[in-house]
Amino acid sequence: MKRNVSLEEAQSLLLERAEAIGEECLSLLEANGRILSQDIKAPINIPGFDKSALDGYALIAADTVLAEPSNPVLLNVIDETRAGFQAKEKVIPGTAVKLMTGAPIPEGADVVIKYEEIIRNGDVISVFKPLKARDNIIKEGEDIKQGDLAAAKGMRINPGLVALLAGLGIDHVPVYKQLKIAIMSTGDELLRPGEPLQSGKIYNSSLFGIMARCAEMGARPIDLGIVPDDLDITSTRFAQGLEEADMVISTGGVSVGDYDVVKNAMVDAGAEIIFWQVAMKPGSPMVAAVREKQFVIGLSGNPAAAMVTFDLIVIPLIKKLMGIENPLPVKIQGIFDDKFTKASPQRRLLRTGPTPHAARLGQGKPP
Amino acid sequence: MKRNVSLEEAQSLLLERAEAIGEECLSLLEANGRILSQDIKAPINIPGFDKSALDGYALIAADTVLAEPSNPVLLNVIDETRAGFQAKEKVIPGTAVKLMTGAPIPEGADVVIKYEEIIRNGDVISVFKPLKARDNIIKEGEDIKQGDLAAAKGMRINPGLVALLAGLGIDHVPVYKQLKIAIMSTGDELLRPGEPLQSGKIYNSSLFGIMARCAEMGARPIDLGIVPDDLDITSTRFAQGLEEADMVISTGGVSVGDYDVVKNAMVDAGAEIIFWQVAMKPGSPMVAAVREKQFVIGLSGNPAAAMVTFDLIVIPLIKKLMGIENPLPVKIQGIFDDKFTKASPQRRLLRTGPTPHAARLGQGKPP
Repeated sequence: MKRNVSLEEAQSLLLERAEAIGEECLSLLEANGRILSQDIKAPINIPGFDKSALDGYALIAADTVLAEPSNPVLLNVIDETRAGFQAKEKVIPGTAVKLMTGAPIPEGADVVIKYEEIIRNGDVISVFKPLKARDNIIKEGEDIKQGDLAAAKGMRINPGLVALLAGLGIDHVPVYKQLKIAIMSTGDELLRPGEPLQSGKIYNSSLFGIMARCAEMGARPIDLGIVPDDLDITSTRFAQGLEEADMVISTGGVSVGDYDVVKNAMVDAGAEIIFWQVAMKPGSPMVAAVREKQFVIGLSGNPAAAMVTFDLIVIPLIKKLMGIENPLPVKIQGIFDDKFTKASPQRRLLRTGPTPHAARLGQGKPP
Repeated sequence: MKRNVSLEEAQSLLLERAEAIGEECLSLLEANGRILSQDIKAPINIPGFDKSALDGYALIAADTVLAEPSNPVLLNVIDETRAGFQAKEKVIPGTAVKLMTGAPIPEGADVVIKYEEIIRNGDVISVFKPLKARDNIIKEGEDIKQGDLAAAKGMRINPGLVALLAGLGIDHVPVYKQLKIAIMSTGDELLRPGEPLQSGKIYNSSLFGIMARCAEMGARPIDLGIVPDDLDITSTRFAQGLEEADMVISTGGVSVGDYDVVKNAMVDAGAEIIFWQVAMKPGSPMVAAVREKQFVIGLSGNPAAAMVTFDLIVIPLIKKLMGIENPLPVKIQGIFDDKFTKASPQRRLLRTGPTPHAARLGQGKPP
C-alpha cells in the first residue's frame, strides 16, 4: 500500500491495473451512448451508386458540344425514374432520361441538367449550352468508401454515429458491456432522503449524487444504501457489492478518526489496498483497493472532497473499464486572475466560476 | 399556411403554440435528466445544526481569555461525541467536550479547538491561547437556508442537483412527463439497416439518427418505420403516430417534386399546416403542422438538411414541450475567417470545424 500519493500517481496506479470488461452486440438504438468495442469498416460505398444531385435530365455530355442558345441540341426523352428505381432504358446518343433528386444515373448517361435549364416539348428537350461530364452527379463512394474506417474502437456511440452506421446498413454493433457500479455511504450520522429528520443527523447526498453521475456516464448504478460505522457490517456490504457489481464505491470512513473503518473493511472483504490518501486538498482522504479485476474505492465523507476525487481519479478509471480511449481529463493551462489566500502546504484544487448551484439558478455563468 | 418563412419566424410560429405536457412525481434517481415542473424551496437548513469543522474539543471561548503558552487554561473533558450524535452533557465554564468532524456542537459551547492544539492529561486538556467564539463551527443554514429557492422550475435535473436535493431530504420531485416522439421516414428508395441491399436503394439513416437524438434529449422515441411515397399510407402512418405520441416527425417527401406527398398526408391526418419551406440552405424543404396540441413536423429527405432544421427549429420546440426554460439556441457572434464561394441568394448555414465524422475519428478537433 502506498500512502499520500500524488494525483497523477493515483490515476496511473488505477489505470495500469484496469482493462475494459467484456463485449456484447446490441441494436443500433440500444447501443446509443455505449462504447464501440471494435473498429467498424464501411461494408458498402456511400452513395452506393452514381446518383443525381437534383431534379433534371440525365444525358450524354458529348451530345451537347455544339449546343448554344440560338441553336439548341434536341434530345428524345426515353424514360423517367426517381430515387429508389433504376431506369429501364439505357441512354444512347440523342436521348435523355428524366429523373428526380437521388435517382440512380441511368446506364450510358454521364451528366445531369436541371429542369430549369431546358425546354421540353412533348418528349423532346432542348439543351442550350455544352455540358461538362459528371456535372450534378454524386459519384459512388463520394461520402465513404467500402473498407474505410467508419468508426473506431473506443468511441462513444452518439446520434451522429448512429445515423452514419444506419446509412451503411449496419443494425447491430459490438460494444463493451455496461459497467455495474455498486455505491454505498458509511456513517452513523446519515439518514436516507424521505426519512424523518432526527436531531444531529444529516441527509445523505453523496450516495445519490454518485449514483446519478454513474448513470449519466452510461454505467448502471446499484444502490447499496447507508452503512453504520461498523467494521463487520461495512465489510459484509463491500462483499455484497463485489458479488453484484464490477466495482464498488463507498463514501465516508476513510480519514484517520476512531470510526474510520472502511480501509480495514475492504481488506476483510478480500481486497488489496493500492493506495491511501492523495496529496491534494480537497480530496485527501481516499482509499483505492482491488480484488482480482474488481476495484473498491473509498471516497471522503465530505461531499465536495468526494466529488473532486470522483471527477479526477474515479472517472478516468470508470472510463477505462468502459473501454473509452484516453480516459484522463484534458489539461488546460491558464493564469489565475484572482487571489487565494488560504495558507496550505498541500496542492490545492480550486473550482472555477460560481458554485454549480448558483450557476444552475442563473445567478452566474459556469466557467 | 405561411410559405418560405425565416428561421426566426419558423422558430416562433412553433414556440408560440407550444406548451409543456403534463407533470408527474418521480423518485430522485428516476428524475435524473428530467425537467423540474415546479420550484423547489429548501424544506430544512443545511447544515441543520451548528457542527464541528474538525476533530477537536468544544468549549466556551470566554474560558480561554487569559490562556498563554506559559500559563495554559485547564478544562475538564466531560463528554465525547461524533457525527450523528448529540452530546449528553452541557458545556459549562471550565469544561469541554471531545468531538469529531461533523458532530453537533454541544449545548453551551461556542468554539472548537483542534486536537493538535491542546495537550490532554487524563480527563483534563490544556489550552495555550485565547480562542475566538464561532471558530471552527459550521453554522446552521450556512450552505442553504430553509425556504430558499433550491431549484427552479424548468431546470434539467443533473447529478449535482440530485445530490443537493438528497441533502435536503427530498426523495421525490415533480417533473414534466417524458415527451413521446414518433418518427418515420418516407421514400420508395429507403431500406432499413439490416435488410439486404437492392439496386438503386439506400439505407435509411435519418430515422435512426433522429430517434437517437430524441433519446439523448430525454424524450422517448417511437419507431414508425419507413413509409413508401403514397398519400394514403403516409396519412395513415401520421394518424397512427398521433395516437401513440405527443408529436410526429417525418423525413422526406416535403420538396416540390411529384412524389412529395407529406404535406397533403398531414392534412388528411387532421393537422393544419403552419408553414412550409424555410428561407435558408440547407434545410429549406420543411413543413410544420399542428393538430390541437400535437405537432407534426416534416423534415427534408436529405440527412444534412434534416439535421440542420432538426437542430435549429425542432429542438427548441421539443425543449418547450419538455418544459425547458429558454429553449432557443444561444447565439454567438463571430468573424468568419475563411471564404465561402458558392453563390447563393438564400441565407446560408455553414458548419464550423471539420465534419463530425472526421472529428470523431480524431482527424481534427471539433469547434
